[in-house]
Amino acid sequence: VFEVNWDAEAAEKGGYEHFMIKEIYEQPKAVRETMSSRLAKDDSSVLLDELKWNKHDLKAFKKIFIVACGTAYHAGVVGKYYIEKLARIPVEVDIASEFRYRSPLLDENNLTIVISQSGETSDTLAALKEAKRLGSRTLAVTNVVGSSIAREADNVIYTWAGPEIAVASTKAYTTQLVTMFMLAVYMADLKATVSPERSKELIKALRNLPGQLHEILEDVEPIKTFAQRYGFNEDVFFIGRSLDYAVALEGSLKLKEISYIHAEAYAAGELKHGTLALIIEGVPVIALATQSDVYEKTLSNIKEVKARDAVVIGLALKGDKQIEKYVDHTIYIPDTDQLLAPILAVIPLQLLAYYAAVTRGCDVDKPRNLAKSVTVE
Amino acid sequence: VFEVNWDAEAAEKGGYEHFMIKEIYEQPKAVRETMSSRLAKDDSSVLLDELKWNKHDLKAFKKIFIVACGTAYHAGVVGKYYIEKLARIPVEVDIASEFRYRSPLLDENNLTIVISQSGETSDTLAALKEAKRLGSRTLAVTNVVGSSIAREADNVIYTWAGPEIAVASTKAYTTQLVTMFMLAVYMADLKATVSPERSKELIKALRNLPGQLHEILEDVEPIKTFAQRYGFNEDVFFIGRSLDYAVALEGSLKLKEISYIHAEAYAAGELKHGTLALIIEGVPVIALATQSDVYEKTLSNIKEVKARDAVVIGLALKGDKQIEKYVDHTIYIPDTDQLLAPILAVIPLQLLAYYAAVTRGCDVDKPRNLAKSVTVE
Repeated sequence: VFEVNWDAEAAEKGGYEHFMIKEIYEQPKAVRETMSSRLAKDDSSVLLDELKWNKHDLKAFKKIFIVACGTAYHAGVVGKYYIEKLARIPVEVDIASEFRYRSPLLDENNLTIVISQSGETSDTLAALKEAKRLGSRTLAVTNVVGSSIAREADNVIYTWAGPEIAVASTKAYTTQLVTMFMLAVYMADLKATVSPERSKELIKALRNLPGQLHEILEDVEPIKTFAQRYGFNEDVFFIGRSLDYAVALEGSLKLKEISYIHAEAYAAGELKHGTLALIIEGVPVIALATQSDVYEKTLSNIKEVKARDAVVIGLALKGDKQIEKYVDHTIYIPDTDQLLAPILAVIPLQLLAYYAAVTRGCDVDKPRNLAKSVTVE
Repeated sequence: VFEVNWDAEAAEKGGYEHFMIKEIYEQPKAVRETMSSRLAKDDSSVLLDELKWNKHDLKAFKKIFIVACGTAYHAGVVGKYYIEKLARIPVEVDIASEFRYRSPLLDENNLTIVISQSGETSDTLAALKEAKRLGSRTLAVTNVVGSSIAREADNVIYTWAGPEIAVASTKAYTTQLVTMFMLAVYMADLKATVSPERSKELIKALRNLPGQLHEILEDVEPIKTFAQRYGFNEDVFFIGRSLDYAVALEGSLKLKEISYIHAEAYAAGELKHGTLALIIEGVPVIALATQSDVYEKTLSNIKEVKARDAVVIGLALKGDKQIEKYVDHTIYIPDTDQLLAPILAVIPLQLLAYYAAVTRGCDVDKPRNLAKSVTVE
């Protein structure tokens, strides 16, 4: 029942051992291309000519639904945060296979955003059609021009990631995040919910991303070493708060799908409500701590797992020396606005999953049981 | 930093080996007491005198937030489904430790419902205060009269579960579900979003619950045998769609907290987007299939995991013979309206967790690292 849309001719590995690692390294370029034509030269605004929305259109959206599956769903979780924080419009994010069957409360006062790399994901396409039937305006975020989802939606924003061949999505995810971020800034400008200064600051930070992604990718040895050293023969837990939790979800999915390690992400504050019982000596915990407004709270959760002798790998912004006191290893990402940290923080997690899979001898590009685009329900 | 509010004098084990199993068996009574004084004698309506809301009050709630932690959060997930389905008011359910820090879009047009057995959960109390500060109306669902959360909220509905001593919540959860269900029917009546006939039908089904709970508890041997036979030395996956997914979340949490087994719940339709890679020969999968409107879809997900030689335990409504063809074992619960199935379906999952923990020699009533009520952040 699974179909692999495998087009080996369309993309060569270009010297890389696997498509996945090639695509991980393509992220600086993919991110640059996705945003290049969409930022005003003077950084004053995001230009989304594919939308042509005005203040009036925006006012009509009383609530936004974001609907997707798998990695794209995780991009939606970040997207909710971006839109609510910047444009102050309530957003509900839903798994497509659940959304379809729960009689969603949707009408012409809503915008429904669907996210799908391939634009062919069966549940997402069905959700899009259901949203249209209920009268909602629709917007697709997809990587494939002319795909079913692109054709069905009222508006489309394309991610310009280039063909993604590996089953585990990497550059599609980062370009989806960039797109959701640009969309949120665009909406915030129209609604005047952020100041022009803040808007400019965010766009400048966005422009720095390709260089910062490149910087992370230049020094992967420590991550490779972690992956080889721990081999992750045990289950792994990812913890974080707010945007760090969203990235933790994606990091754990990567590890699951290609290295077959049972990884699970937890909102760090929820640990004490059950999962902490699983944390004993030697259990690997990957703790994301890139969000300054919940930094102290996250640190106290890190202390909780460390007190149970977990092996903790901290993921933090460069310059954060405090975290080193509480974790076994620290992975640093370049400093950025905390809203953009997810786009950088996911890279070490993709690399960790990749090297763990290689260490364990897994078939990285074609993990067992999975298809690139899920065109069945 | 953890505090156990342990009051052994207040509740005796009464012949049971552990408080948890005693409390599991108290559920028919707890459910009956929670609803007894709140249903009209002729089954025509739900009486929630603690609210005294009218049609006008209800219209003021443009959106409802449900905020809670752990098991109470899982009750909130079911509550969202109930309120949206019956009263057609949009609901957002959020983890308290996340809600507090994400600048929620909340004002006087919202109702915020907080759920907490103890009424002292630190993050939930803080979320309640934040909701009030933003102008939201507030309602507490709690088991402890005069608790901080009960005192802080505008309105309170008490669950009448009696003192819950075991760290792993059981009767608090089922009575929270009953309360959310009654609240949804009450709102639906006021808004006239369900017919009087349907309302009566639902209340009659509710009245049958204590007897049906008793029926499940009379024959626990098959569940005990499963738990002993599989010992669950491996990780376990729970799958289901819509309300079954909500119950799967709670079932997996029970197994985690008392038997220290890494269990994870998945929306069945999401499996193909990653987690299916972990399903290989012999992996135990507990598949909930109590919801008729997604039954066929769930069955196709069951076939997917069975095709990978997972050991599948199906949980279905009595009379469903079809499922037996696709699973290794079937656990049946009495037939009921599909909206009420979660209140029955969770019982075998509580028992499974309990007997797995006993088999593994775990300290059932005081699992490692956990406290009964989390009064720190």
